[in-house]
Amino acid sequence: MVSVPEGFLFSAVSCGIKKEGRLDLGLIFCERKGTAWGVFTKNTLKAAPVLIGKTNFKEPFHRAIVVNSGVANAATGEEGIKRAEAVLKDLASLLKVKPLEILPASTGVIGEQLPLEKILPQLSELVAGLSPERAEDFAKAIMTTDTFPKIAQRTTKDGVKLLGIAKGAGMIAPNMATMLAFILTDGYLKKEEMKKLLTKAVDQSFNRITVDGDTSTNDTVYFLASGIKEVKDGTDFAENLIFLAKELAYLIVKDGEGATKVIRVEIKGARNKEEARALAMSIANSPLVKTAFYGADPNWGRIFSALGKTGIDFDPQLVQIFLNDKPWVKKLSVQTKEENLRKEMQKSEVSLVVHLKLGKVSYEVLTCDLTEDYIRINASYRS
Amino acid sequence: MVSVPEGFLFSAVSCGIKKEGRLDLGLIFCERKGTAWGVFTKNTLKAAPVLIGKTNFKEPFHRAIVVNSGVANAATGEEGIKRAEAVLKDLASLLKVKPLEILPASTGVIGEQLPLEKILPQLSELVAGLSPERAEDFAKAIMTTDTFPKIAQRTTKDGVKLLGIAKGAGMIAPNMATMLAFILTDGYLKKEEMKKLLTKAVDQSFNRITVDGDTSTNDTVYFLASGIKEVKDGTDFAENLIFLAKELAYLIVKDGEGATKVIRVEIKGARNKEEARALAMSIANSPLVKTAFYGADPNWGRIFSALGKTGIDFDPQLVQIFLNDKPWVKKLSVQTKEENLRKEMQKSEVSLVVHLKLGKVSYEVLTCDLTEDYIRINASYRS
Repeated sequence: MVSVPEGFLFSAVSCGIKKEGRLDLGLIFCERKGTAWGVFTKNTLKAAPVLIGKTNFKEPFHRAIVVNSGVANAATGEEGIKRAEAVLKDLASLLKVKPLEILPASTGVIGEQLPLEKILPQLSELVAGLSPERAEDFAKAIMTTDTFPKIAQRTTKDGVKLLGIAKGAGMIAPNMATMLAFILTDGYLKKEEMKKLLTKAVDQSFNRITVDGDTSTNDTVYFLASGIKEVKDGTDFAENLIFLAKELAYLIVKDGEGATKVIRVEIKGARNKEEARALAMSIANSPLVKTAFYGADPNWGRIFSALGKTGIDFDPQLVQIFLNDKPWVKKLSVQTKEENLRKEMQKSEVSLVVHLKLGKVSYEVLTCDLTEDYIRINASYRS
Repeated sequence: MVSVPEGFLFSAVSCGIKKEGRLDLGLIFCERKGTAWGVFTKNTLKAAPVLIGKTNFKEPFHRAIVVNSGVANAATGEEGIKRAEAVLKDLASLLKVKPLEILPASTGVIGEQLPLEKILPQLSELVAGLSPERAEDFAKAIMTTDTFPKIAQRTTKDGVKLLGIAKGAGMIAPNMATMLAFILTDGYLKKEEMKKLLTKAVDQSFNRITVDGDTSTNDTVYFLASGIKEVKDGTDFAENLIFLAKELAYLIVKDGEGATKVIRVEIKGARNKEEARALAMSIANSPLVKTAFYGADPNWGRIFSALGKTGIDFDPQLVQIFLNDKPWVKKLSVQTKEENLRKEMQKSEVSLVVHLKLGKVSYEVLTCDLTEDYIRINASYRS
């Protein structure tokens, strides 16, 4: 049951961009003048909705978020911008708001234009369908290869609600949000506060996940506040926001294309954050590590090799590896029976801790295993 | 038919490191005092044979190369060094050479010790079997997940012969040789010349291939000259060496784990070599591009996204893409019927040219597609 922050309505329709009549256009409407912040992909090839969103989110107030799936509207040039603006213009008119007050996002195939002939005729139905009870429909409308809608919710001690809705399963890499996520709250926040809060939450969550190392052209996180409730305890709010963002990030990895398990990779005892992050990401992105976890093969040499290929110095003799808190490798020797290690690796949630014993810095990332299904999904995504 | 450079003998035996009685220990013997150069992995976790080889190859003369497959002798600490040295000591005694004159290499599972009890008893048979006719047996003995032995040969205008033998199928990434390759010649070359020649040849070949972006702990290229023939035309020799190295590199990609096709990715019109290389490698390493080629899906947006995720600026409107010399994308529009593009992508050799129109620099890398078989091979490599 989705507990929606006050002031928000949701809707979704099927325009026929995706096949089989699936929902492919979603709308979030803020009944008041909401305040927003956004974080966007670092891919230099930015999708049209990202370029528009990056301009629009600087406006003082926002009223809506509109998202289509099926077509990314990336690598679509001037025509892509025009088409996205045409959607915003018609939608703004129906919602009786300004086009600049709407934040757009798209996800899907790169290089195809938005099919306006399919989208524009559905906008009135989209607006007519707005309701506080349709958050889950919105979550479904933004799915592509996702196998389940991704929703997370929190309520602060003050009773301020936070609702997060995300999508993402492939093209997930850690350089910024790398998927779509929309975080709504009925708390009152100033734009500058939202920037600080969101930047920190994204660093702690979406920037610490990876599925395939491919950073998308469309990655966007919008944070929209209806401002109805007072945020008395800012620290509590910030903690809830981070918790929520981490939960969404976890759901994206859990739904990683073809994945059968989530792997929590934690580097401990590093000299500094940069090295800890590079080492954790090298393990988390290694196809050989990811396939070994898929096969539940305790081939720890691949973990050491992934550490070494970063070019970062470490002493293999000092390294200790733990699998689900069980000692795995110490002084280059295996500490637990292979059979027991295999059993741990077969679980759907696996924790891998690599302690370098060089310093005091830790860094954790989430990844998933790499399976035949990842290949199947991506070899035939469009067909 | 292998045409062997003068002065070299080969042998191979099965020690039982690999299963089913397959050849797993190979020897190259140089009947004269040969001259050598070596290039090694940049992975900071260097295998014991790499550490020993890096010391030994600085000696003025060399007489042999010994290689085992099945166990990488990496992440094996002091004990790994001792065991590799024990093999060299016994082998040197049988060959009546110094241990320092032998260059070692290993490939296989990381983190397991060399099984001396299996290897040492076979050394006399290994030496007894030396023959100029067993180069192919040697090539087989160094295979792991390779599906065919990799041999290339050239003869210069002067009649100087070059023979290259390589192995490699997974853990292939471009940061130095990332596999094992042994290049033999009967030409006379000084050590300093060999260094220059090999460095250039490796940069043009093994450093321009990628299978899975995972740089191995054991990558080694040894270049050994018996010095029997005069190299009159140095330019011709250098060209033949580069040609040979490129052929070996091609064979490694062709045998990329699970691969069904070789993809030649060429960036043209870049501003400089660094950017051209980064862009080419980003395409060549993208799982989404590689799976699209596997599925023969002309999803060009993934190529643009791979360009963009490097963070390098380019103008999408200027980019032209060619598939097997057919125009694919220009001004963000597809130039050839999808059906025809699919047919081109189904071929076992595919050329992808991405022209940026920003400058005059080109860079080419070889990669392969990513298939379910890559997953199967690597999820169960040890079992």
